[in-house]
Amino acid sequence: MTEIPKNHPRYESLMTREQIVAGVENGMTSRQGLIAQGRGEAFDYLIGEKTIESADYAEAVAVCLLLLAENPVISVNGNAAALAPAELVALSQLTGAKLEVNLFHRTEERIQKIISALKENGADVVLGENAEPLLPLEHERAKVERDGIFDADVIFVPLEDGDRCKVLADMKKLVIAVDLNPLSRTAQTAHVSIIDNLKRALPKMIDMIPEFKNMNEEDLWEIVDAYDNNVVLVDAIETMKENLTAKQNEILGIENDDAGSKKEKPEDPRKAGRIQRNAEIARKVLMRGGDLMME
Amino acid sequence: MTEIPKNHPRYESLMTREQIVAGVENGMTSRQGLIAQGRGEAFDYLIGEKTIESADYAEAVAVCLLLLAENPVISVNGNAAALAPAELVALSQLTGAKLEVNLFHRTEERIQKIISALKENGADVVLGENAEPLLPLEHERAKVERDGIFDADVIFVPLEDGDRCKVLADMKKLVIAVDLNPLSRTAQTAHVSIIDNLKRALPKMIDMIPEFKNMNEEDLWEIVDAYDNNVVLVDAIETMKENLTAKQNEILGIENDDAGSKKEKPEDPRKAGRIQRNAEIARKVLMRGGDLMME
Repeated sequence: MTEIPKNHPRYESLMTREQIVAGVENGMTSRQGLIAQGRGEAFDYLIGEKTIESADYAEAVAVCLLLLAENPVISVNGNAAALAPAELVALSQLTGAKLEVNLFHRTEERIQKIISALKENGADVVLGENAEPLLPLEHERAKVERDGIFDADVIFVPLEDGDRCKVLADMKKLVIAVDLNPLSRTAQTAHVSIIDNLKRALPKMIDMIPEFKNMNEEDLWEIVDAYDNNVVLVDAIETMKENLTAKQNEILGIENDDAGSKKEKPEDPRKAGRIQRNAEIARKVLMRGGDLMME
Repeated sequence: MTEIPKNHPRYESLMTREQIVAGVENGMTSRQGLIAQGRGEAFDYLIGEKTIESADYAEAVAVCLLLLAENPVISVNGNAAALAPAELVALSQLTGAKLEVNLFHRTEERIQKIISALKENGADVVLGENAEPLLPLEHERAKVERDGIFDADVIFVPLEDGDRCKVLADMKKLVIAVDLNPLSRTAQTAHVSIIDNLKRALPKMIDMIPEFKNMNEEDLWEIVDAYDNNVVLVDAIETMKENLTAKQNEILGIENDDAGSKKEKPEDPRKAGRIQRNAEIARKVLMRGGDLMME
């Protein structure tokens, strides 16, 4: 491991990177999984690196669905196993969902390593070894177990490949996805899209289980029926736009106000000119004025 | 290499991933570099995977600065070398800028592999082997050559670590960065921030060189003096917001109009209800109405 100085401004993000690199080194995570992790980092940054209210709502609905399901299955890939093995096992045990390893870059060695990691974290049974190519996909994610993903009515797919998500939905299974990118095919295709970091989402879901376990099926269905995934997607995108606007204001020296209106800081007389110039920039960009560019 | 079926909807993106994975396999690119690549992919998607007008402008100014500089240096890391070695060498030869390898996750083996790759692509001299810890940084990027980065007046830093970018700027060097993330410390600190994919930016810059080489220094300085990096940053963020809005409208079934106004499609009577419902969602999200969420 490369040593990262503690005073590096991105120490935590870099340390998480080191941890997922360790996942590659011990054979669970694919190298392509590192790139997927990077994409997630970028979207997490845009969402504010916290669980937004609409994601919390989606997490609650996901828990209801897992409790209502007759044969719920949690699909585990190399990134999920590296990031939150104990939480995946806890979710499985508390909701009665089966665990099944399913990989895009499948090798039997990786399957075994991930099964071992989940068992070390308390899992009793982990499916995935005896998978057959039962899904209409041309890649390795087609391979699922007949009693697992193939027969599931509700599937929880953290960090999913969009291609398979669509196939599962076409098979009339209810799909719950965890994906920080609200624009991804996975997020657009799933029935419940949790736009949150898996490491934040799972503990929150686990905390919610006792409350929902005390409710009757009718009340759980009422929560599920009232849910609209489009609200969650549009809300996550709106949050990103708000954070981007705040950054624009920061660059232009305009104070961000909670009420949404923009206040300018005129204290420093030297600043006044800068603010005026920056307001001009903002105007040009918004108008996409031709004078912005050279010929 | 895992075989990717050609009909996979993200075939090209996945193939690029395979290529950078190959960079890791041959020892040039660090595993952490794969995560950085993933972050770049996400921001490239948000910018529309094309060179926006303001990035084209920044690229032109960058070429002017490289031509005006007395001791310009191109800093090369493992990702840049894996993605565009020939273009880096061409930029160096056409502007007279030196090439220097500088790595965050530095090993002498990686330095040698990258130097070899650049020489295989036609480079004559590549600095980086005889680097000393001359920059006030606690990590390996402190190591630079005295005649190279340490003495440079203009530095071109594709895919940069934000930490070093600040140190270089503090040393009164003019820094040109290529970074798809307009919010990064690198983009915020550099004097010229090219918010573009390195693989698109370099060929464009190379194409511009003959035109600017024919201009006199005074005219080149005029272009440089008129440049305002804040315009470029704010414009890139604005583009991302526009693309996010387009995606929101797509989710809500609202047609995106070039003129910016939103047209609704009322043809299908069954659709009318959906559009009305989705308009209601849009309103709630924008108001962040409490009724969006459960208790």
